[in-house]
Amino acid sequence: MRPPEGEDRPTSRLDALVARARRLVEPHLAPGAVVAVSGGADSLALAAVAGFFVRRRGLDARAVVVDHGLQDGSAEVASRAAAQCEALGLPATVCRVEVRDLGSGPEDAARVARHRALHAEADGAPILLAHTLDDQAESVLLGLARGSGPRSIDGMRPASGALRRPFLALRRAETERICALHDVEPWHDPHNDDPAYRRVRVRHELLPLMEEVLGGGVAEALARTADLVRADADLLDAMACDEAPPSGAIDDVTAFADLDPAVRMRVWRRLAVAAGAAAGELSHAHTRALDGLLDARGGTRIELPGHVTAVRDGRGVRFLDAR
Amino acid sequence: MRPPEGEDRPTSRLDALVARARRLVEPHLAPGAVVAVSGGADSLALAAVAGFFVRRRGLDARAVVVDHGLQDGSAEVASRAAAQCEALGLPATVCRVEVRDLGSGPEDAARVARHRALHAEADGAPILLAHTLDDQAESVLLGLARGSGPRSIDGMRPASGALRRPFLALRRAETERICALHDVEPWHDPHNDDPAYRRVRVRHELLPLMEEVLGGGVAEALARTADLVRADADLLDAMACDEAPPSGAIDDVTAFADLDPAVRMRVWRRLAVAAGAAAGELSHAHTRALDGLLDARGGTRIELPGHVTAVRDGRGVRFLDAR
Repeated sequence: MRPPEGEDRPTSRLDALVARARRLVEPHLAPGAVVAVSGGADSLALAAVAGFFVRRRGLDARAVVVDHGLQDGSAEVASRAAAQCEALGLPATVCRVEVRDLGSGPEDAARVARHRALHAEADGAPILLAHTLDDQAESVLLGLARGSGPRSIDGMRPASGALRRPFLALRRAETERICALHDVEPWHDPHNDDPAYRRVRVRHELLPLMEEVLGGGVAEALARTADLVRADADLLDAMACDEAPPSGAIDDVTAFADLDPAVRMRVWRRLAVAAGAAAGELSHAHTRALDGLLDARGGTRIELPGHVTAVRDGRGVRFLDAR
Repeated sequence: MRPPEGEDRPTSRLDALVARARRLVEPHLAPGAVVAVSGGADSLALAAVAGFFVRRRGLDARAVVVDHGLQDGSAEVASRAAAQCEALGLPATVCRVEVRDLGSGPEDAARVARHRALHAEADGAPILLAHTLDDQAESVLLGLARGSGPRSIDGMRPASGALRRPFLALRRAETERICALHDVEPWHDPHNDDPAYRRVRVRHELLPLMEEVLGGGVAEALARTADLVRADADLLDAMACDEAPPSGAIDDVTAFADLDPAVRMRVWRRLAVAAGAAAGELSHAHTRALDGLLDARGGTRIELPGHVTAVRDGRGVRFLDAR
């Protein structure tokens, strides 16, 4: 492992890629920053870029390699990744976690355990994750499998709390090229070829067919769409927050009906959740049914998941929590 | 051809489908309404439902069958479809059009010619189109091939000017069942099996794979997402319209920068188009570049498609049309 040629003044085409990756990462590196490393191409590329800033500028950042203990040899994979980070100039810690599946599936359980460990290690400093544009495109499509609407297809945020995803603008293949340029050989997770995982089929079957049928540029279009839809939804959610009556009830349906539907449906959702309805089970059909209360007779009731009932009451609507 | 059993009081499961289709169509039938019929299952099902209201209520509606003259035997296909409509109780006119491809492809040219004929026939009365939920899902995916962002994936509107699409809530297979119930045999357009058409591959390859990989319900999720994204974009476009300076220039970038990005990017786009920029070629990269003018030095210029230039000028931004 060695730093790429001319790393201080990138000139060749591939060095231009490294320079671009550095520009993406630099704003997110603060003292104590933690780089989440799995040993795959994307996170080793991120480690290589972070290592540059540590070596050249003495920045206090390090890698945290989480060992989920779910596969045979996971400890070896983790210690190899840590050694690769160290060779790239990035101090590394291996962090063994206990993964407990609480019913949402093994991938989700692993993510929860990993994020908990990363937050504990970072202690408030930025946590850099190596998700790429390809991961973002896959997330948009996987979102469609879980629901519908803007929030189902808005992907991952470039920054969310301590989490930073500077590589969302890079392709996965570009992270592989960054690894090659640094003479780093990434670990290939066998899970990434296992079609039992939905994400693997999205990556290896669905996105290639979309590229073929729709004529290319689909991953970029999905990622850009996620960004734009997220910006829209953020503003509209903030507007709904402003419009939601603090009392948790609607006093005058006539005034409420004047709200634009895009905001009104969000206010219904907020009111229902504030009243105790189960957010994860609250569908658009429920919010549409709630909206129907605007034209309903007094006493009309809508049952919501989580034992919450909305009742048309005179000129208003109240929520009852039956728990 | 005969009306389905018990058509006045639908009782069986399939009659419930006909009853549902009638509830979808009824609000859109006004005197002089025109039903666009191709002879396919979706439009013959729509003709069957409209024919019911004509027969039972004496409503003044009729079918218009557009003969594009693009395939051998298109005149026979059109006259057979017209005869089927008449048998269903819906008076029918065949309208032969001249399709001229002005560079946007044969499908687009056919649609332009068809819509011109339908508008001429309807003369302001509603025009009912038989697009189904499946068509909507395909449109969302095809939108991704043309661009990105909310407006690329917001599909077809249920109502747009004189156009009405009452069957967007029905599946294509349901229109086939409605035809079977009315003993109507739809025409099968051979173009619908020709993989040279992108839409055909979306229908027969991409959507089935999405259903398989993502776990079902994808067409519904895409259609619902289109509706919700469209509602959001409609409100935000209206807000951008309110915020766009009528002078066509920005006088004070500081105040302008306070707008939420979701609205601000839309205002940039409106200003650029109002200044003469080519709307179809104006990308998100252009609007992002325009937004960069907020932090730019005086004299900084952004070239836009259509020979329009935006210039940072003192505390403001002006647009110059070089044509």
